[in-house]
Amino acid sequence: MKIAVLCSGRGSNLLALLEAHAQGKIPGAEFVAVIADSRDAGALNIGREYGLQASVVPRAAFHANREGFERRLLEVLAPHEIELVVLAGFQRVLGATFLDAYPGRVVNIHPALLPAFPGHMVWADEVQYGVKLAGATVHFVDAGVDSGPIIIQGAVPVLPGDGPDELAKRILAVEHRIFPQAVAWLVSGKVTLAGRVAALKGFAPTPEQISQTFVWPPLED
Amino acid sequence: MKIAVLCSGRGSNLLALLEAHAQGKIPGAEFVAVIADSRDAGALNIGREYGLQASVVPRAAFHANREGFERRLLEVLAPHEIELVVLAGFQRVLGATFLDAYPGRVVNIHPALLPAFPGHMVWADEVQYGVKLAGATVHFVDAGVDSGPIIIQGAVPVLPGDGPDELAKRILAVEHRIFPQAVAWLVSGKVTLAGRVAALKGFAPTPEQISQTFVWPPLED
Repeated sequence: MKIAVLCSGRGSNLLALLEAHAQGKIPGAEFVAVIADSRDAGALNIGREYGLQASVVPRAAFHANREGFERRLLEVLAPHEIELVVLAGFQRVLGATFLDAYPGRVVNIHPALLPAFPGHMVWADEVQYGVKLAGATVHFVDAGVDSGPIIIQGAVPVLPGDGPDELAKRILAVEHRIFPQAVAWLVSGKVTLAGRVAALKGFAPTPEQISQTFVWPPLED
Repeated sequence: MKIAVLCSGRGSNLLALLEAHAQGKIPGAEFVAVIADSRDAGALNIGREYGLQASVVPRAAFHANREGFERRLLEVLAPHEIELVVLAGFQRVLGATFLDAYPGRVVNIHPALLPAFPGHMVWADEVQYGVKLAGATVHFVDAGVDSGPIIIQGAVPVLPGDGPDELAKRILAVEHRIFPQAVAWLVSGKVTLAGRVAALKGFAPTPEQISQTFVWPPLED
């Protein structure tokens, strides 16, 4: 399955995907292209190192013209016959122009336990709200903001004294584990959708897994 | 610390609190009164069995008069010199009339990982949204709906095939563990508030606790 990755930042999630793939953990995946919306995105170099075609579609060149931006993304992707589009720290909301070209084939990772804290720069909001459990979510992309069907979620604790940076770092560590897993499931055709509820074919959790809980702060006894 | 518990339902969380107290897990607590907003609430009998004074303040008698309802609750509580008010499945939103009488001394349990899914009857919403992690939250009550500072959260998995009832049952099990713990912390004076962020005095998590995560569906390896 040919995969393109869209990034805006330094590309740590892209790297996690490419390393997992190099270790044989995403069988059947072929990472062919990385597109950044800024030429400063470190993700471009990471992609080049792993042999992906790296392109820039500068959002700034499409001021107030999201459709034009999305059409340009589609033009860049078209020759690659992409079957899965992975948003890895891509700081743009995609609309129907792009999404209709890849129906059900665009996924995103978000640094919160959705539907809590959608949108941008959520770590400060999470800290200020005072949540005790934070985390990350991989989901299909729909026309809303971080509102599509959820594939996998991972929770981490919020610690006393956490600022946005400390929390972001802890969440990022779980992102790097759940994102390759989600992509592996997608590539292997394991992810099914019924309405907006995603499920895994053949998923049969053990009693130990089912009875798992995560309480924070931890219970004393 | 004298505690009153407000309930609307069968009182399973009240029972969890009273059993934990009977086992010595909430030292310093004195559960003195239970109030239900309906005489059908099973919580009344549970309270009576454990020696609490059980009262009914029927919400129906205060149609369109929330202030009157809250003033009546205050009248019933007044003789008991209550220091902590615990909402355990109490299906009414309390306003300033009540809350100003117990500033920072009213706590609630909610069957979701707040701020996701506030409000009533959230299990169906959680299932229909397709979240993979659900859970429960104990929080201070403020003038909003389930929006006050969070004391403790507990996450549980959402399983394939879960309906609202199955999910509610799994969440309830973690509610019964985190609610007595939160009340024990409150009674012992361990809970501090800085702005809207609650913390625990002397809380020093171990490295193992800090590195804990909860991923669902579980990672394969």
